[in-house]
Order: sequence, then structure tokens, then C-alpha cells
Amino acid sequence: MERKKQIKINLRYIQQLDKEDIYQDYKNLFQIPRKIIYFGANTLGLMPKKTINSTNIFLNDLSKKGVLGWRDNKWLCINKELGKKISKIIGSAPKQVILSDSTSINLFKLLYSAIKVSKNKGIILTDDKNFPSDYYIISSLAKEYGLKVKIVPREKLIENINRTVSIVTTTQVDYITSETLDLPSLTKQCKKYGAISLLDLSHSVGILPLLLDKWEVDFAVGCTYKYLNGGPGSPAFLYVNNKYLEKTDIIIKGWFGHRRPFEFNNKYTPSKGIEKFLTGTPSIISMKQLEASLEIFNQIDLNKLRKKSFNQTSVLIDLILNNQHTNKIKIISPLEESRGGHIAIEHRNASKLLAYYEKNGLIGDFRPPNVIRFGISPLYNSYNDIWQAAKIINS
Amino acid sequence: MERKKQIKINLRYIQQLDKEDIYQDYKNLFQIPRKIIYFGANTLGLMPKKTINSTNIFLNDLSKKGVLGWRDNKWLCINKELGKKISKIIGSAPKQVILSDSTSINLFKLLYSAIKVSKNKGIILTDDKNFPSDYYIISSLAKEYGLKVKIVPREKLIENINRTVSIVTTTQVDYITSETLDLPSLTKQCKKYGAISLLDLSHSVGILPLLLDKWEVDFAVGCTYKYLNGGPGSPAFLYVNNKYLEKTDIIIKGWFGHRRPFEFNNKYTPSKGIEKFLTGTPSIISMKQLEASLEIFNQIDLNKLRKKSFNQTSVLIDLILNNQHTNKIKIISPLEESRGGHIAIEHRNASKLLAYYEKNGLIGDFRPPNVIRFGISPLYNSYNDIWQAAKIINS
Repeated sequence: MERKKQIKINLRYIQQLDKEDIYQDYKNLFQIPRKIIYFGANTLGLMPKKTINSTNIFLNDLSKKGVLGWRDNKWLCINKELGKKISKIIGSAPKQVILSDSTSINLFKLLYSAIKVSKNKGIILTDDKNFPSDYYIISSLAKEYGLKVKIVPREKLIENINRTVSIVTTTQVDYITSETLDLPSLTKQCKKYGAISLLDLSHSVGILPLLLDKWEVDFAVGCTYKYLNGGPGSPAFLYVNNKYLEKTDIIIKGWFGHRRPFEFNNKYTPSKGIEKFLTGTPSIISMKQLEASLEIFNQIDLNKLRKKSFNQTSVLIDLILNNQHTNKIKIISPLEESRGGHIAIEHRNASKLLAYYEKNGLIGDFRPPNVIRFGISPLYNSYNDIWQAAKIINS
Repeated sequence: MERKKQIKINLRYIQQLDKEDIYQDYKNLFQIPRKIIYFGANTLGLMPKKTINSTNIFLNDLSKKGVLGWRDNKWLCINKELGKKISKIIGSAPKQVILSDSTSINLFKLLYSAIKVSKNKGIILTDDKNFPSDYYIISSLAKEYGLKVKIVPREKLIENINRTVSIVTTTQVDYITSETLDLPSLTKQCKKYGAISLLDLSHSVGILPLLLDKWEVDFAVGCTYKYLNGGPGSPAFLYVNNKYLEKTDIIIKGWFGHRRPFEFNNKYTPSKGIEKFLTGTPSIISMKQLEASLEIFNQIDLNKLRKKSFNQTSVLIDLILNNQHTNKIKIISPLEESRGGHIAIEHRNASKLLAYYEKNGLIGDFRPPNVIRFGISPLYNSYNDIWQAAKIINS
């Protein structure tokens, strides 16, 4: 996965890459906005065509059956069924993953569980590149349970894991720069010092090959509306390592986490499995909206998809770097292997520049004060998209 | 709203009632399953026809715009916009209501806020007819913050509010029997003794006229998938009385509760308004699925709708009571005014009986060990539905 620095990139080379791409036909499965180069995968992925159809099937069932749908259409199992599909994407045994609520809520739930199961040495360790919402959740729970939050520079996170640390929590992919963390090293260090890992995979899932079980990650959360194309605010997932599945305590004891919710027992008995992390009645339509995309992912080799993704972002980087007109643009994403699916550039007038791109048919997003991000999906973005985008960026 | 006990109910009378019904045409706005009498409104309401259309408009927008939808289609305001519509239904100023997460999560959030803002005298008071999931949340937080949960018989709830009570929390409508609580008396007693009220309106909203501001309710939550027809697991709402809006503390500090979430500031500054009770990215499709029904409700006079609802359940009660064959069926709902929108009957073989009803085209639901509930929606159920249902029940 080295950058092909030496090759002069021209349209012919781009066409050759598209021709050789084993996932070139997948873009036909997606609803792609007309006359737009869509580089928004890191914020909101595009919908598979099948999603419209399956949502209509759901609405049709609902209008025929009403409440009987819960029983006849197996809506009660849907959190776990989708969890199984996610488990293949993140390298986990099926029984350790479930779809539920939002990433923030899930982080809150699992951080509480981690605090309770940890030896409570007093420190929650994170780094200065974590996602803002994660800091809010972390500091809120730390305050509640008398733990100290220690924020270190991202490059020093792993070396700061020591005997004083109860929990290490951060996002794998820096949402600004796209820089990735070395998870196997992080979990190895956690094991060495008895710290618990809790990872936010929102910018990783569906774009990086993950092996949570193998790496012995303890807890993880993530969203499904970025590279997984579940639509705005689609349900988040949570992962709990098998060794904590039974013994962890839970803070939000909702009825869907009960062992037998439909016995309507006044006493709470947690489910033995991952369902105990469920809370209230799940939104079935938002689960249904995610189904078609996860089915596509379950046909994909994520190592190969990652290779395409990395090549695509490399080509975009080269096309920007090779252009002399763009010297006011600074690429702040890593130029080498340690980056996720998006490329971030810095520009003094980033907000105006993005409006110009949009006017010319290129969709990216803005992060204050001066960053533009391009999230490229190897499922529906072609190399030609990158060629066209670079023309706009370099104009 | 007295029961018309004296009138002999025959088909002609039923037809007359349907003819005089000012909401008779509203049923045309809903997707009604063919050849089924749908009495499932207390569990899962039926969808307006317009919902299919508006969901497709949403999906279409999404396929054209992707991430730009957040800005162009005002998805960021949708929690609050729908909250405003709910506020009209529950008798609140618009700024005190927002759609967010599930009822369980919202109860958890508001109970924490109530604990923090209360004078913490040590007791959370509830009654023996509260919804199971509410007990789980209550006991979980009570344990966490060292409060005692006191459960009293429902009929003694109000008289048990005294100086030792921090918070009074329960469901307004008994989910089994349909018996309602006298909320003005409850809040009056709360005010007298400085206790905070937190109500679950899941079985009340859209079927009972509510005046939360007038009654000086402190906090409330409720679901939108029963009488409000938002679809399975549609988003829940939460209500916070104006006097607590700024000063309450929140436990789940998600980025959507931040004053300026899209500045991505690492420090949490809560929104000044009701938005501070939001958490993670909301599911837009599940919000959209609720819109059409709330628009219908905003054209309705809830006092008149309640009158129809009460008449309808009265007619069903009379038709069952007048029949000699049904002496093995016991009506456990209040026969007089203090009942909500559903009727519950008890039968030794309730589960089998319900299967028989279903085979004959009547949908109700089962609650263990021996209760069948019929949830009648005055928006889409006619008096003739009740006549037909009674024929099946009495057969």
C-alpha cells in the first residue's frame, strides 16, 4: 500500500485504474446524485438503491399488519441480526455486537460499564485528537465517578498507558486529519498494564479492516451513517468483548435489555447476552434503512476495499501535490499509510473555497476554522471521480 | 362524558353515532389493514397514508443531496420542530418539548436531572401500577445516587406525597387497566411538599387532553408510536418545565446538546434551551415518519377527540356487559370516567382467546398472565368497528 509517487498520473492511467478495479460495478448499487462528485462518505454515506425499495416494503408491511409486524416480521431480532452483519465488518464473534441508540449514548453506556469493571485506578486516558462529543461524555462520567481525565498528545497516547490508567478511550481515526491509531499496539499496552480499551470506530468502520477480537479490544462503539451508508442518524453499534459480556454492569436498564421484556416483570433481570445493552423500543425504520448497505458489505473483502481506498486517497494527494496552483492548500492528512478514508486540506479561506467547490459540483465538508475534508467511498467513488475532483480543486 | 347506560345499543344507533361523528372522515387519512378491525392503537398506532409519501420524499432528497440535506432540508431543527407539534398536544409552551431517543433513555436523562435539582430528601415515590421499564430506570438511578424507592398502591400515591419525598414518578395511564391518575391533584400535592413530578405519558399522549404547563408538571416523557402513530420505535419526547430549563444538570452530554455543536469545541457548553437534552445524531428518517401524524393532530381538538374516545370505549364496555355469553370475560378497566383509550379484559385463557379474535379479524394485544387489551383510536376507528369487534368478542 505504498503511494505510487513515481507514476505520472494522466487520464489514461486513471481510466486504467477504473478498469482494473474489482469493485467498479458496485457504484451501480448506489443512489448517486447527478452531476455531483460526492466526497461526503466520512460524514454521510450515500444510500444503496435497494434501501428505497426495502423501506417501502417495510412501510407496506406496516400498513397491512400494524402491531403484528413485531411478531411476523421479526422486528424484535433486528438489533441483533444487524449486529451480526456489523460483527463481520469489525472482526468480532457475532454475539458481541448489537445495534442500538446513537454513538454518544452507546459510549455513555459502555464507559459506565468500563468504569465499573475496571480496577478504578483513577485515570481515564484519552488524547487531544478525540472527537468532541466523546470528550463531553468522558468528562461527564469521570466527574460523576470521581475519575480524572488525562488528555495527552495523540502521538504519546500509547506510551502513556501505565499502571495508573483505568480506561483508555479515543477514536481510531482522527476525524480532522484522518490519521489512524495503531490499535494492536494500544491494546497490547492495555493488557500489559491492566487498562481497559474503549474505542470509537465511527470513522473506521466500513473503510478499515478491523480485527477487534484478535486485537483483544475490550469495548467499542461506532456509527453506521458514514462509510456504512445507513442514512442520517442511523442506529449506532456497540461491541463488548466476550470476557465482559456477562459480568459487566449496565447503567440504563431499559426494558429491551431485560431477559424477558414481554413478561412485563417489575424486577429487572438483565439479558445474559449483548441484548442487555439495549434500552428502549428501537426504531425499526431506521434499522431497516441500514439493512441493504450491510448486505453489500457482507459480500466485500475489506482488505481489498481498503487497498482501493488507500490507492484512491493516494491519487488525490498526488494530483493536489503535483499542481503548482494549489500552493495555498496544505494537505494535513498523513501522506503515508497511517490514514483512514478521508483527506483533509487546510486553507485560509476554507469555508469560501468549499462553497466554490460545491458550485462546481464537488461535495466535501468544512470543519472550523480552516479545514475541508474529502471522504471517498471505494464502493461508489471511481478513480475518474478523483480525477474530476482534482481538476476542480486545482482550478 | 357519562356512559349511556340506558340506551339499547343496536346497529341503527351505531350508524347514527358514526354519522354524527365530527372526526368520521379522518379514517380516510390512515392506512387501515384490509378486513381487520385494528384495536392496537395502545401498542402501535396505524400510519397516515401521507407517511409513505413523505418518507419517499425524504429518501429522494437524500439520494439527490446526501450530506447537503442536513443544511438544505433543515434536518438539524427537526427535533425541535416536532417538539413544537407535541407541545400543542400536551399543553406546553413550544420551547419546553423536544423529540429525542426513546422513552427509557429520556426517563433516565430527566430522572437524573430531577435528582440533581431536587432537595434530595431521599425518596423516589412511585406506585405499583407503573410501567416495568420505568421501575428498572428508577431503581437503577436510585441505587446509583443513594435514594430509596418507595412503591405504594396506585390509589394511595397522591396521599403518600409528603416532606420526605424528593421525586414522584409514574405513568399517567395504567398500561394494563387503563385507569388514569388525577394529575392536577398530584402536582398540587407535589407543590405543597416541594416534591418534583416526572410523568410518563406514553399511554396518554394523543388520547387524553393534557395541560402540563397549567398543572405545573415538572418533567415528562412519552412515546409517539401509540396513539400518535409514529411507527415502531418512533422517537420519544421529553418535556421540561420552563422553571428548570436553564438550571437543570444533564447526565448524557452528547454533541447535539452542545450550544454550538458544529464548532466542534472540545469543551462542553450546554445549549440554553431544551436542545441540551439531546444526545447523539438523531435518526432523521424516524423523525420524518412521525411528521404526517403530528400534522393531523395539530388540526384536532383534543377535548372533542377525547369525548369520542370515551364514548367509543363506553359503547364497547356496554356491548360486552350486555351479553350473557361473555360471563367468563371480566372487564378490568374502570367503567367510569377515569380511564384512558384502551379497554382491558381478563380471561383465564386470554392468550388462546386473542388468537381466536385474530383469526376472526380483530387485533388486540396480550399482557401476561391473562389480560387482553383493545386500544381504540378515535382517529381511525369507527363505531361500526366497535360493533363488529363486539360481535367477535361476544361470539
